[in-house]
Amino acid sequence: MHPDSPSARKISRTNESVEPDLDVGSLVAFGGGHGLAATLSAARRVASKLTAVVTVADDGGSSGRLRRELGILPPGDLRMALCALAGESEEHQDLASLFQHRYGGNGALAGHAVGNLVFAGLWEQLADPVAALRVVEDLLGSVGSVMPMSPVALDIAADVFGLEADPRVVRTIVGQVAVASTPGQVRRVRLIPSDPPATPGVVDAISEADMVVLGPGSWFTSVIPNVLVPEISTALAQTSATKVLVLNLAPQPGETAGFSTERHLHVLRQHAPGLDFDAIVLDPRTGLSEGEMGQVNRTAESLGARVVMAEVAKNSSNGGIRPIHDPDALGAALGRIGRTD
Amino acid sequence: MHPDSPSARKISRTNESVEPDLDVGSLVAFGGGHGLAATLSAARRVASKLTAVVTVADDGGSSGRLRRELGILPPGDLRMALCALAGESEEHQDLASLFQHRYGGNGALAGHAVGNLVFAGLWEQLADPVAALRVVEDLLGSVGSVMPMSPVALDIAADVFGLEADPRVVRTIVGQVAVASTPGQVRRVRLIPSDPPATPGVVDAISEADMVVLGPGSWFTSVIPNVLVPEISTALAQTSATKVLVLNLAPQPGETAGFSTERHLHVLRQHAPGLDFDAIVLDPRTGLSEGEMGQVNRTAESLGARVVMAEVAKNSSNGGIRPIHDPDALGAALGRIGRTD
Repeated sequence: MHPDSPSARKISRTNESVEPDLDVGSLVAFGGGHGLAATLSAARRVASKLTAVVTVADDGGSSGRLRRELGILPPGDLRMALCALAGESEEHQDLASLFQHRYGGNGALAGHAVGNLVFAGLWEQLADPVAALRVVEDLLGSVGSVMPMSPVALDIAADVFGLEADPRVVRTIVGQVAVASTPGQVRRVRLIPSDPPATPGVVDAISEADMVVLGPGSWFTSVIPNVLVPEISTALAQTSATKVLVLNLAPQPGETAGFSTERHLHVLRQHAPGLDFDAIVLDPRTGLSEGEMGQVNRTAESLGARVVMAEVAKNSSNGGIRPIHDPDALGAALGRIGRTD
Repeated sequence: MHPDSPSARKISRTNESVEPDLDVGSLVAFGGGHGLAATLSAARRVASKLTAVVTVADDGGSSGRLRRELGILPPGDLRMALCALAGESEEHQDLASLFQHRYGGNGALAGHAVGNLVFAGLWEQLADPVAALRVVEDLLGSVGSVMPMSPVALDIAADVFGLEADPRVVRTIVGQVAVASTPGQVRRVRLIPSDPPATPGVVDAISEADMVVLGPGSWFTSVIPNVLVPEISTALAQTSATKVLVLNLAPQPGETAGFSTERHLHVLRQHAPGLDFDAIVLDPRTGLSEGEMGQVNRTAESLGARVVMAEVAKNSSNGGIRPIHDPDALGAALGRIGRTD
């Protein structure tokens, strides 16, 4: 294997399947897990150049086991992002489906995703996570590039209250799984180590982007961690890209149980005081009251953003919405934001 | 994934890198492990169509663990054969090298080959080992096809003497690892189950072959098991292909410790009484005495074969030979046999 030289690692993959009149140009999406995969499925419809910047703090499941066993970056969120960007051919889609497959049985492999083990093998061979990702991008015929937000595996620590008899007592909870599933209320998260480097290439991708997209996703454990990497936070503040925040369609049990839409905006601002946005995407069918909409509009304004109401959720069979973004609808919303901004 | 229909599973892969004047046509090679890989590395130089038929009785190492954990065919020998047939491009060779990589560390993955886990995932997904092999062939740009000798995982049982104080007492030893490493002398091996089916397509490949090659390899645990599959044994007896036996360059510690060249021929004949050969490839530098050569010639004659003396071993740095076949030299020997037969 021949890892490219650092300068050649700059994002250069282009997505040729975008029609020129939908093209929002170069797009960088931040997050992890299913939320980021949803953004990427949408963004690949409208971005001619696409980079995913992925949280690397997972400590649960297959990723957690591999991280502890082999000392590698947790691969799961990277794998999901890559599979969301796999080429359209049957061959590439089949390989993505293999990479997503989890072993059955009840032995040492049970629950591991095949792609996670392929990543693990490549990282051992190449000793370079970015070079390994590029090999997988080639295998999958990826229409974009996937980068870990940091080349070092991170942990998330959270200040959580509501865990003791005295509701004012704040305790520190460490680990993505523990934070995401805490029965208490998360007040603030931080990274361990607290000052990790960004992966080389991420800052350039942000600087050169036409659009950056944060969310949807697990707010404290997938979305906010990205803005806690100092170089990423600075690059986001400085880029001339259109900055879009895609809100979740429902609070998540555990980390954001009971959170209002406005509270999501509020905690993001708390963690990244210098960060403003151009557009915040909200589905009108999430059923906010007039009072709640007023709050959201005021907070959005303080972030420099307009609220873009767009029916981006999938329809449910009972006439309501499912808490999952529809790639076509979200892609169209991003396309409209790109054209009007 | 879309497994091909059974009729489409007939071997159809062609090897376009063979020069017409070296072409021995369609070649089927039998065995397992490093021996089969050596034959394939040689045969790909001279065969326009190439099929490997692989022993599936391994119960040790990564293969044994996967077989016990997931109830699948032992993948190791299949993986080695596929990697020996990988396309020449850097991309294909890199992927073969990844598939051969074994995880480090000291956890649940340690010692597993990456390719074995990819096979395991594909088998779970497709529930069809042959369809899974075809996917891997495509990934590796294989110049030939690899088939398990049987679609069911097998075990090897051996009658072994010399394990008790009374050297005449015969004990049954079960399992490829146990047989291959027995301190006793192997007299006879059999398969469990004793009457396994051949993988669909194997019989046709043998019938249509211009050349079939047995050996080199672990005699009792990789080479002989193939001729114990009734359909394979019958197909080998009936095919009009040129039948070549490539002898090992040295006895193997354990299963054939102390075996003479003639004894290798003798035990093969014992296990497959109806099987004859056209050519037996022997390196003159293995140092047989005149008496031993006389024995070999007589036994070869009883098998219907001429002995082809060819310097097929790799040279060692001290002027002797290494017990490893040189792909160019063995390929040239096969090419000469194909032309003169």
